[in-house]
This record gives sequence, C-alpha cells and structure tokens, in this order.
Amino acid sequence: MDDRNMVLNLMPNADFGYKVHGDPFSTNTRRVLAVLLEKGLFYEPITVDLKTGEHKRESFLSLNPFGQVPVFEDGNIKLCESRAITQYIAYVHSSRGTQLLNLQSHKTMGTLTMWMEIEAHQFDPFASVLTWEQVIKPLYGLETDQTVVEENEAGLENVLNVYEKRLGESKFLACNTFTLVDLHHLPNIQYLLGTSTKRLFENRPRVCTWVDDITGREAWKMACDHDKSWFGK
Amino acid sequence: MDDRNMVLNLMPNADFGYKVHGDPFSTNTRRVLAVLLEKGLFYEPITVDLKTGEHKRESFLSLNPFGQVPVFEDGNIKLCESRAITQYIAYVHSSRGTQLLNLQSHKTMGTLTMWMEIEAHQFDPFASVLTWEQVIKPLYGLETDQTVVEENEAGLENVLNVYEKRLGESKFLACNTFTLVDLHHLPNIQYLLGTSTKRLFENRPRVCTWVDDITGREAWKMACDHDKSWFGK
Ligand SMILES: N[C@@H](CCC(=O)N[C@@H](CS)C(=O)NCC(=O)O)C(=O)O
Ligand SMILES: N[C@@H](CCC(=O)N[C@@H](CS)C(=O)NCC(=O)O)C(=O)O
Repeated sequence: MDDRNMVLNLMPNADFGYKVHGDPFSTNTRRVLAVLLEKGLFYEPITVDLKTGEHKRESFLSLNPFGQVPVFEDGNIKLCESRAITQYIAYVHSSRGTQLLNLQSHKTMGTLTMWMEIEAHQFDPFASVLTWEQVIKPLYGLETDQTVVEENEAGLENVLNVYEKRLGESKFLACNTFTLVDLHHLPNIQYLLGTSTKRLFENRPRVCTWVDDITGREAWKMACDHDKSWFGK
Repeated sequence: MDDRNMVLNLMPNADFGYKVHGDPFSTNTRRVLAVLLEKGLFYEPITVDLKTGEHKRESFLSLNPFGQVPVFEDGNIKLCESRAITQYIAYVHSSRGTQLLNLQSHKTMGTLTMWMEIEAHQFDPFASVLTWEQVIKPLYGLETDQTVVEENEAGLENVLNVYEKRLGESKFLACNTFTLVDLHHLPNIQYLLGTSTKRLFENRPRVCTWVDDITGREAWKMACDHDKSWFGK
C-alpha cells in the first residue's frame, strides 16, 4: 500500500448527494466510480439494466438523450460522457484525496490534456473494440470476430510502443504521478487482462510495470468489487 | 459582422513564436487554425505533405510518434491532438480575443466539458467517416462506399436530433455564446456542406441557423482561405 492509498483509507468519505446511473460492469461506469473512490466521495448507485434495454426508454433518455451510461447527477447538474464526469469531479474536488490533475503550469496542463486526448483518440478506439469483441459479445451470446481482434491488436501494439517509450521518460503517462490520464485507461485494461490481448501489455516491460501499478490501486480494486462499490452500498 | 468579429479585426495580432505543423486542408489542422485566428495570434505554418507520406518519416515521428497532423509548438512544448491544442491555447489566452471557454462556475465548466466530449464521442465518429468517404477518398482517387455513407448518416441524424432540441434551450451547444464546443464541429461541418449530407443540417431549423452562424464567423472563413491562413503568410 503506497502513501496515497493510505490517505484514501484514513480519509472519511464525504457525502454531496451524488448519484451515478449505470451498470457496475460497464467500462464507462467504472471510469466514474474509480474517480469517486480515489476522492473518497459517497454516491448513490442506480442500476440501469442494459440487458433489458432500460437505457433506451423514455425515462432514461430524459437523463441522457444518447441512451448510454453512465449519467452523473450533482443536484440539478446532470452530466453524461464518462470523461466529462471524471474531469468535473477532479476539478470540483481538486484538493481532496488523490491529486488527479497536474495543472501547476501551462506546460503541465497542456501535457495532461494531450495525454487525455491520446487515451480517447488513439488508445480507446482499439481497446474498446477489443473489450467488446472478447468480453462483452460473449456475455450477450454473440461470437467474437477474430479478424476484428487481429486488426485492433495491431493498432493497439503501435499505441503501446509509444507508451513504452513515454514510460521511460516519466513514471506515469502525463507526469511522475498517477493522474486522470492513467485512470481513464483502467476499465479497458482490466478487462483485456482477462483475454489473450494481455500479452501485448506483458511483452513491454515498462507498460507491464505501469499496468501492475495502476490496476493495483485500492480505489480501482474497490471499483471492480461490485459488492463494495455498487450492490452492497 | 457581429461584435466579436469586430474586436477580432481591430485587435493587433500577437506573436508568441507559435508553429503549426499540418496540412491546411486537413480537418484537424483547421481546428487549430480556427482558435489561433479567433484569438488573433500569429503562427508559423509548416506544411507536412500527407500525399507523399511525410508524416510517417522519422523527422516528423519525433514530433508526433502517432504520425498525424497537426502538431503545435510553443517553445519547448510540443503538442499533438487537435482538441488538446485548442484547449491549451484557449486556456493560455483566456482573456484575449473571443472568449472560447465558459468556466465561471462548476456548473458551466461541467456543461462545457460534457459538450466537448459529445462532439468527440458522438458527433465526430459519424461526421469524420462521412468526410473521409465523400471528400477525402475522392481526392486520393478512391471510391466512396455508399453503404458506409448511409450507415453513418443514420447515426449522424440521431445526434443532430439531440442538437436540434438542445439549440432550443441555448443559442450555442454549451451556452448562449460561441465556445470551443461549437468551434470543434466546424472542420467536418464545412466539408459536409459540400456533400449531400448537407440536407441533414438543412432539415433541422435550429441546427441550420447554428451552422450558418458558426460557419459565417470571420476567423473561420479566414481559416478556410488558405492564401490568407497558410500559404500567403
Ligand atoms: N462516450 C461515452 C460512451 C458511453 C457508452 O458507450 N456506454 C455503454 C456502456 S459501457 C452503453 O451505454 N452502451 C449502450 C449503447 O450504446 O446503446 C462515455 O464515455 O460515457
Ligand atoms: N485525433 C487527432 C487526429 C489527427 C488526424 O487524424 N490527422 C489526419 C489529418 S486530418 C492525419 O494526419 N492523417 C494521417 C494518418 O492518420 O496517417 C487530432 O485530433 O489531431
């Protein structure tokens, strides 16, 4: 347990009346839970049943017209898009719990924003298709398309080669401390570690250490433990 | 010409020694030019010849290992990812030229961030494929795939239906003034107005007014006028 995780465990949770509408197994919902847990914030989890199409019904569409989870509520503020929600929480609670932003100077702000965009536009397109094909489709009784897996693994390899080099320059992607950038990667990486795509992370020593480090965080382990992070609450 | 454009024309350009590596016809490069011009900032344009594959050569890969334009240089800060560059410039020059952010409160900050993510994750996936199929592929002598066009137009229609409703609540997507959110949409919209996808914008009255408004801005017209924004500089 490192220093930050120690702080997390000692910090009393704070209740701002937040609500999270989502599915605790969904990657995008888990991205939001991870931030709330890193910050030691209470939230009310509200399950949206994706299997029965609850997210496409009128009551949910009035919360998010795009019909997707997660949706976050802070009083009369209703936000969709997981990465907008994480940024919102990280800004509002910038001085609480784990420091997830690194905005000391224009330079560090620019670097952090760039790596956030790299996750969204370079890593996620390949990683989310690989999660969909190998983890989610089987859950819905659909068959994995091996050609799609191979194409996306090739794309992911190029991205991870850039990460391997970057992680020789700084301990985490944006800087020497864990930030939202690393956190945004967690949901797909966690699922992919249960598939043969795991080897792409293991083959690259610095990426491998980074993956061990970020997936081992207390807050992340709690986000994946649904009895603690969702159903037991 | 509205008030903001008047300010733009009266404001002397400021030179911070910025460099933009890109292609003036590329959507992602134009997104960055639009911000620089809204802010009245000088920049040195450096052409990266995509047709001859210059972006995949070692000299360019050392600037952006993902081999894509644009890349922005501010002294020793080198940034890739167009939306990271626009956010960086808008933050650094927040009090100069057009106000592109709306960060007065947590609420307005959250709303702006959410709409930025909606552009990136809901609008762009359909719009950039439609631009690619109908505008870029023909330039490279490749054939447009009509099935892909139809599928992506159906997706774009759903997004524009949400926008039509939203534009009944506020004049622009994030709030009542033009922000980075609207600006990020410009490059794809401008190209799609030259294709049959144009009808999807025209069929929706509020979207149609919004499109007229944002594409008519002086800074945007200058970004698309390559003699002024790129070659003539
Ligand atoms: N860009 C959105 C994506 C949200 C998303 O795709 N959520 C999935 C669950 S992980 C969903 O609701 N899928 C149902 C659907 O798209 O119909 C975000 O980051 O929140
Ligand atoms: N997400 C990047 C995308 C950049 C991008 O795709 N740029 C295109 C030109 S518009 C490019 O360089 N394409 C060449 C390639 O991807 O090989 C951004 O927003 O800057």
